[in-house]
Amino acid sequence: MPVTSSDLYPVSRLAAVQEATAKAGLDALLLTPGPDLRYVSGYDAKPLERLTCLVVPAAAEPYMMVPRLELPAAEASPASRLGLEFVAWDETDDPYRIAADRLGPAGRVGLADRMWAMSSLRFREVLPDAEQVLAGTVLRELRMRKSPGEVAALREAGAAIDAVHRRVPEFLRAGRTEREVARDIAEAILASGHETVDFVIVASGPNGASPHHDVSDRVIREGKPVVVDIGGQLHNGYCSDSTRNYCVGEPPAGYAAYFEVLRRAQEAACAAVRPGVSCESIDAAAREVIAEAGYGDYFVHRTGHGIGIETHEEPYIVAGNGEAMEPGFAFSVEPGIYLPGSHGARIEDILVCTGTGGERLNDSPRDLVII
Amino acid sequence: MPVTSSDLYPVSRLAAVQEATAKAGLDALLLTPGPDLRYVSGYDAKPLERLTCLVVPAAAEPYMMVPRLELPAAEASPASRLGLEFVAWDETDDPYRIAADRLGPAGRVGLADRMWAMSSLRFREVLPDAEQVLAGTVLRELRMRKSPGEVAALREAGAAIDAVHRRVPEFLRAGRTEREVARDIAEAILASGHETVDFVIVASGPNGASPHHDVSDRVIREGKPVVVDIGGQLHNGYCSDSTRNYCVGEPPAGYAAYFEVLRRAQEAACAAVRPGVSCESIDAAAREVIAEAGYGDYFVHRTGHGIGIETHEEPYIVAGNGEAMEPGFAFSVEPGIYLPGSHGARIEDILVCTGTGGERLNDSPRDLVII
Repeated sequence: MPVTSSDLYPVSRLAAVQEATAKAGLDALLLTPGPDLRYVSGYDAKPLERLTCLVVPAAAEPYMMVPRLELPAAEASPASRLGLEFVAWDETDDPYRIAADRLGPAGRVGLADRMWAMSSLRFREVLPDAEQVLAGTVLRELRMRKSPGEVAALREAGAAIDAVHRRVPEFLRAGRTEREVARDIAEAILASGHETVDFVIVASGPNGASPHHDVSDRVIREGKPVVVDIGGQLHNGYCSDSTRNYCVGEPPAGYAAYFEVLRRAQEAACAAVRPGVSCESIDAAAREVIAEAGYGDYFVHRTGHGIGIETHEEPYIVAGNGEAMEPGFAFSVEPGIYLPGSHGARIEDILVCTGTGGERLNDSPRDLVII
Repeated sequence: MPVTSSDLYPVSRLAAVQEATAKAGLDALLLTPGPDLRYVSGYDAKPLERLTCLVVPAAAEPYMMVPRLELPAAEASPASRLGLEFVAWDETDDPYRIAADRLGPAGRVGLADRMWAMSSLRFREVLPDAEQVLAGTVLRELRMRKSPGEVAALREAGAAIDAVHRRVPEFLRAGRTEREVARDIAEAILASGHETVDFVIVASGPNGASPHHDVSDRVIREGKPVVVDIGGQLHNGYCSDSTRNYCVGEPPAGYAAYFEVLRRAQEAACAAVRPGVSCESIDAAAREVIAEAGYGDYFVHRTGHGIGIETHEEPYIVAGNGEAMEPGFAFSVEPGIYLPGSHGARIEDILVCTGTGGERLNDSPRDLVII
């Protein structure tokens, strides 16, 4: 059954958020465009310099500040189902002042985690007595626990990016540059049903030892492994993110040994997922395998990050995060081994915690793909 | 001659920014990923939850906080030319504390205009005595005045998006949905040499009366005008943005009359551009033509926005902005007329102010394109 917007952004959510806001001792949430606004209202507003802001007071009716020229877009968005008042402002108005006057005195407000400084500093001016905290302190509890509809959307995103990985061998040829390959992959991400391309990492040879390498004009060569880490966002807002490893011809000496360690580490972390275990224990499960094999110094990042309507969100699978897994948590498991100056590898799947373990939402081949 | 990264992000800029920071009475700029960071350093860092931040003290050596796993990416970026120290932090460090300890006492700091609240609030904690203002107060003076290299990059972006507009008639067919057409346009934006697709507005019939309509599942019909407003970002960071109008078959009665008014208004505003005139006078030039023809109530937004490494940046072409045009200012001129419930039209070119007037950087046909 296709996932509908109502499954993903239920009308009931606004009341739940308002209740959580009151419970957290905040007077209001101020949600500018970005994932927090979309999560609460379903409205995927453009993040621009004109203020759009959903104000969710703890104890009064919510309303949304909207630039007049975007009023039709707001009215056509899922936010229109919420019975909110849209407060349209004109090009020469001060929308911050209007929003503050309407809210009244506030002692503590929660800002969308991604609110731009150009907005947070204006809100500080017009609400000088309000302590600013992150809306995430309220919303994380809701956003981390994915509903069955959200899991279905992430599954759809996983299948879409798997389809792109299966096409990578068409694009990856010796003699082409990383950038040329990345452009083809970006088009394939769109063609596979994603609405946007969020990132395309094509990291060949020594670039593969840079976990967040993007692309470069480096030419793909035979015998040089390539890390391909790609993701996009579906029309419904949910994100994909998966990493696989490719090589034109046979990989260099030494590669197979650590790739096999990486395979086992990724398996071990996936197998460690179940309700009640800590996030850091999943990180440790991958790290132990890699460290025992002597590659501990070459795994320089955490094991994973939550995913939903943001590619990176809570929970983070990292040492120090003792939060216990719950059914509905969705996150990446992506250990890597990086040999500076030579090459590297990373294997990444998205998993969701079920009642009994972890379900992988990606299933394209995890072995090195030899082209 | 192709524009090089050194033309667009000269090494000398950092010293100029540092001087301007001191002159503005700020102790430091704190630049997280986004256009401000890119403008100053050339580094197009990923905006993610892990802190990357270029700290530009007014009176000490600049340094850049970098997550350890992104250190190779930072070192491979144009920022490496600046002779900066990269301060790498590990997954369990507190990079805000490290940045603050190194900066020392500060009374006033400038935050990147798009710094996320998750960072600005942490900087407030670790620099409790520092008043936070926008880095834009310093950087706008530099960013608004485009160098010849920057103008060349915008010209390249303009030519790329013009090429996409010329292909729109291939994609726009009666019976297809806006979303289907938009997907083809997005692929064409990438194929034309853009690195990213920033927005694709395909607004047919009544949707054309919503200036910031995005796309929908509405089906394109004969005789229903379509507003197509598209843009992307080149690999070098510079952006395109152009709007044209299309119709499968003849447009409805009444359309031609206001479209002709719009054509004249857009021409009048373009002709008004020259050094010394105020930004608001260019807005007024378009608005007067539309108001005199009786459509004043149907032009509900400002006439334009600056453009560079952001699609929307200063200067804004809007009533109330008395700032005087200077050679090198680059901005859109995009009046629109919107008949709610029926249809609408907008014509948008990017212009650069030269020593004597305004040069348009777009030249695809501005007349209604009948398909």
